[in-house]
Amino acid sequence: MAKNDPIDLNKHKITREPLPKSQKIYVPGHLHEDIRVPMREISLTNGEKVTLYDTSGPYTDLSIEIDVRKGLQEVRRNWVVGRGDVEEYQGRAVKPIDNGYEDGDKAFVTHNPELQRKPLRAKVGNNVTQLHYARQGIVTPEMEYVAIRENQKRAALSEEKANSEREERLKGESFGANLPPAITPEFVRDEIAAGRAIIPANINHTELEPMIIGRNFLVKINANIGNSAVTSSIEEEVEKLVWSTRWGGDTVMDLSTGKNIHATRDYILRNSPVPIGTVPIYQALEKVGGVAEDLTWEVFRDTLIEQAEQGVDYFTIHAGVLLRYVPLTADRVTGIVSRGGSIMAKWCIAHHKENFLYTHFEEICKIMKAYDVSFSLGDGLRPGSLADANDAAQFGELETLGELTKIAWEHDVQVMIEGPGHVPMHMIKENMDKQLKECHEAPFYTLGPLTTDIAPGYDHITSGIGAAMIGWYGCAMLCYVTPKEHLGLPNRDDVKTGIITYKLAAHAADIAKGHPGARYRDDQLSQARFEFRWEDQFNLGLDPDTAREFHDETLPKDSAKVA
Amino acid sequence: MAKNDPIDLNKHKITREPLPKSQKIYVPGHLHEDIRVPMREISLTNGEKVTLYDTSGPYTDLSIEIDVRKGLQEVRRNWVVGRGDVEEYQGRAVKPIDNGYEDGDKAFVTHNPELQRKPLRAKVGNNVTQLHYARQGIVTPEMEYVAIRENQKRAALSEEKANSEREERLKGESFGANLPPAITPEFVRDEIAAGRAIIPANINHTELEPMIIGRNFLVKINANIGNSAVTSSIEEEVEKLVWSTRWGGDTVMDLSTGKNIHATRDYILRNSPVPIGTVPIYQALEKVGGVAEDLTWEVFRDTLIEQAEQGVDYFTIHAGVLLRYVPLTADRVTGIVSRGGSIMAKWCIAHHKENFLYTHFEEICKIMKAYDVSFSLGDGLRPGSLADANDAAQFGELETLGELTKIAWEHDVQVMIEGPGHVPMHMIKENMDKQLKECHEAPFYTLGPLTTDIAPGYDHITSGIGAAMIGWYGCAMLCYVTPKEHLGLPNRDDVKTGIITYKLAAHAADIAKGHPGARYRDDQLSQARFEFRWEDQFNLGLDPDTAREFHDETLPKDSAKVA
Repeated sequence: MAKNDPIDLNKHKITREPLPKSQKIYVPGHLHEDIRVPMREISLTNGEKVTLYDTSGPYTDLSIEIDVRKGLQEVRRNWVVGRGDVEEYQGRAVKPIDNGYEDGDKAFVTHNPELQRKPLRAKVGNNVTQLHYARQGIVTPEMEYVAIRENQKRAALSEEKANSEREERLKGESFGANLPPAITPEFVRDEIAAGRAIIPANINHTELEPMIIGRNFLVKINANIGNSAVTSSIEEEVEKLVWSTRWGGDTVMDLSTGKNIHATRDYILRNSPVPIGTVPIYQALEKVGGVAEDLTWEVFRDTLIEQAEQGVDYFTIHAGVLLRYVPLTADRVTGIVSRGGSIMAKWCIAHHKENFLYTHFEEICKIMKAYDVSFSLGDGLRPGSLADANDAAQFGELETLGELTKIAWEHDVQVMIEGPGHVPMHMIKENMDKQLKECHEAPFYTLGPLTTDIAPGYDHITSGIGAAMIGWYGCAMLCYVTPKEHLGLPNRDDVKTGIITYKLAAHAADIAKGHPGARYRDDQLSQARFEFRWEDQFNLGLDPDTAREFHDETLPKDSAKVA
Repeated sequence: MAKNDPIDLNKHKITREPLPKSQKIYVPGHLHEDIRVPMREISLTNGEKVTLYDTSGPYTDLSIEIDVRKGLQEVRRNWVVGRGDVEEYQGRAVKPIDNGYEDGDKAFVTHNPELQRKPLRAKVGNNVTQLHYARQGIVTPEMEYVAIRENQKRAALSEEKANSEREERLKGESFGANLPPAITPEFVRDEIAAGRAIIPANINHTELEPMIIGRNFLVKINANIGNSAVTSSIEEEVEKLVWSTRWGGDTVMDLSTGKNIHATRDYILRNSPVPIGTVPIYQALEKVGGVAEDLTWEVFRDTLIEQAEQGVDYFTIHAGVLLRYVPLTADRVTGIVSRGGSIMAKWCIAHHKENFLYTHFEEICKIMKAYDVSFSLGDGLRPGSLADANDAAQFGELETLGELTKIAWEHDVQVMIEGPGHVPMHMIKENMDKQLKECHEAPFYTLGPLTTDIAPGYDHITSGIGAAMIGWYGCAMLCYVTPKEHLGLPNRDDVKTGIITYKLAAHAADIAKGHPGARYRDDQLSQARFEFRWEDQFNLGLDPDTAREFHDETLPKDSAKVA
């Protein structure tokens, strides 16, 4: 393949078919008239229509032409530029090492000029974060967008089916979450101003359909994708992104390692309607040949700017792995299992110095606020087994993440906090309560947690249990786990299984919290089930294809129902 | 095929291979010397051995010859007969209608004379239930057997790994369950005497390896099997039984409908090391041509005796579906979804009479105690959707089940109580608390509950979440749900997926309760994981085959670990 000849993505079809009996509708803004919030409308066989939150972006709108070699339409560009506080600039030149090569020829084979944009950054003296705007009292288009999106037109629909005995009987237990009957743009603004919610939205990710992460909103889920030297290719990564958002991924983390990660990220960001998160230390490590001890602040800083210019929406930064916490992991059953955590621990021990992410934290904040990259403060010391749950190392780090949250907030940088991991059911609530307290109600974003260690091959389920529970207790976003966890890299089916598992966990949490209207979809589906409207039952489910495939047409009407 | 020529089961191989690196060991009794409690011992690559609870019966002991046409060894026969309170008798003659035929020729095609035993029953004036013995202060062989079995040799093994900081940090929240460090035969007896636990063990099920169901013991799981007119055959049912116990099914319910259910049950019971439960009203309904209104106490009574003589260990009896509760379901989203519940509701409404299972309850008790069949008091009015959870119909029935529990206990008949169904997370605990109160701490046995209705195809997971939680809160046994729930009949893979999901949920519950030694297996597996002992990690897991299959040998050592 010649240099600069982009990979032929037509060979690898991007999935674009809408879900069955579904069409995209757009709800306009009031404050901001150019807002068009996409939703999915399902047509039922009884003539009713059900409107649902839709993460799948323009891919499921066949009236929109998409060429992944050119990227999606820039729906946010006018909002960002229209605020008058950003400037285009030349940007950092892409280097061969960004793609993992010394040699320019190899490095730029996968480089696609059509995906390059001149980066934007805050003009000198400006701060372009949603948190900054919120604190100024401004309702941005992004804020109004997420307000409309969260409402899902469900409040009105729910009223039709209202039944006061039922609503009273089923009213949720929110553990202090504040769930108003309808989400207004001003409510969104106030939640962001208080640091209780974030809209991860880098000004360079202009293709984004904004979404919000916070305890007082719908529980969100994240799907991880990422190439590896072993298996994957750029075109597979783009399809994985599309596939993840199709089934309900609210954000996607690109955990690529190995070669071509800069070029892969170009493809992912320019084609992503959802926020993209990364762990910049992974790429920084590639740049120093995989030797943790050779990492420097300069290499890391350069990587942050590289990724911020591309448009990454949130960075996992393991700034809480302090030198003094590392010895606390010595007696653990599973030591340090976070990849970022073990990289930083290795660096701290080798140099016997404090973590440079911690010592340079204010400088990191300055970069973040110039692009509105949100922090996802990493839990590098999270437990890798039940035996290590809620121990001194984990909770020590959490306290430090609380300190760092305050520093980030002084810079008006948006923050969420990552959480574990492996935690027995009875110790999950303590994690949530402590996180709320130590981190001043910044949104919590957890991996699972897994509630037992004995089911390799089924860790989407061991963790789905913990995820549903911590979502109920107040966790704002759940990072999915696939059936291949601990064993191998997930394939397409594994990704889907992980996402569906986490969607159902997040939804179970919304219901238990008493999120207004959350039960509307359950009631619609149950009604369809009771009336043997099989097609509606399939189409209202999280995965119509699997439900349809499992349905046995030969089955007598009453024998499939046990539960 | 000629009459009386048993189906050739050799064509349909019964799975007998032990799980990888596992061998059967037997722990002898102290009080009762002829007790040999089977356990599974896994040999690790580091030379250590781990002993686990083993439900798989003699099938995984290759030193034992098994011919399913003849049935398993009768390990309990001497114990039952040795008590001197039972008599052999002629028993009820099998009728064509028992297999769903008018015509004897067809009915007896599948009849296997080699599986017939002369039934046992209590001698006049005797009561042969484990509850009766316990109240007399007797420790039966069954009681000592389950005491040894529950201990799993784990207490001693755990001590080796003890770490007081860790034990204190991870100590469970039992919500009032009483979990002594070691289970003694006397503790078992006292729990049974108090009605807090049952050993389902019909005196005619002499092939049984006894097990216990109660809040103060390990959480158990049930798998449903059952033929249907549509799909299945006797040999498939026996293999389903073996398959279910291989993966950890503690009890199995035979929900067969259609033809040959008596003959199928012969095969299942004579080849089952685990307790078998049934819903006798299903067979009774077959006998009256499927017309609920035509059911009579006489037909039902005859069916109870038929099944008690065969050796069924527990009967689901929907005696709590009272006439006055039926109208309470009128405003529900999903009405009455329990098959047994809707049969009885239909009967009550058609005759405008009280449920004959309720009015004849004392007579049922008299049959139960002559064979030691345990009650599983059915929740015929359980919710079939979140919208109907915890409503007046459901809780009204639960109160009636509490009344019936007391009546059964007056006859020294063992009782457990069935529970829902579909319940949002925040309403699960109320179910458990109310059941303990209304039913006087009789063991609770729930289906799931499903925590959302929107995931057809994934209801093993929506319900696994609820099952883990209610297990933690005190539920004694969890009835599995497979991925085909609501959609079709489960195949072999679905059964396995359902069982593994429920095993991990039950185990997560044991850990959260603080069951002594429950975390031992997790710690062993985590240690193996941390040391990259892949084979040990697979073999210590619930499903070594899937873990091994998922493991990607090409994977770099550190990249498969996210959680």
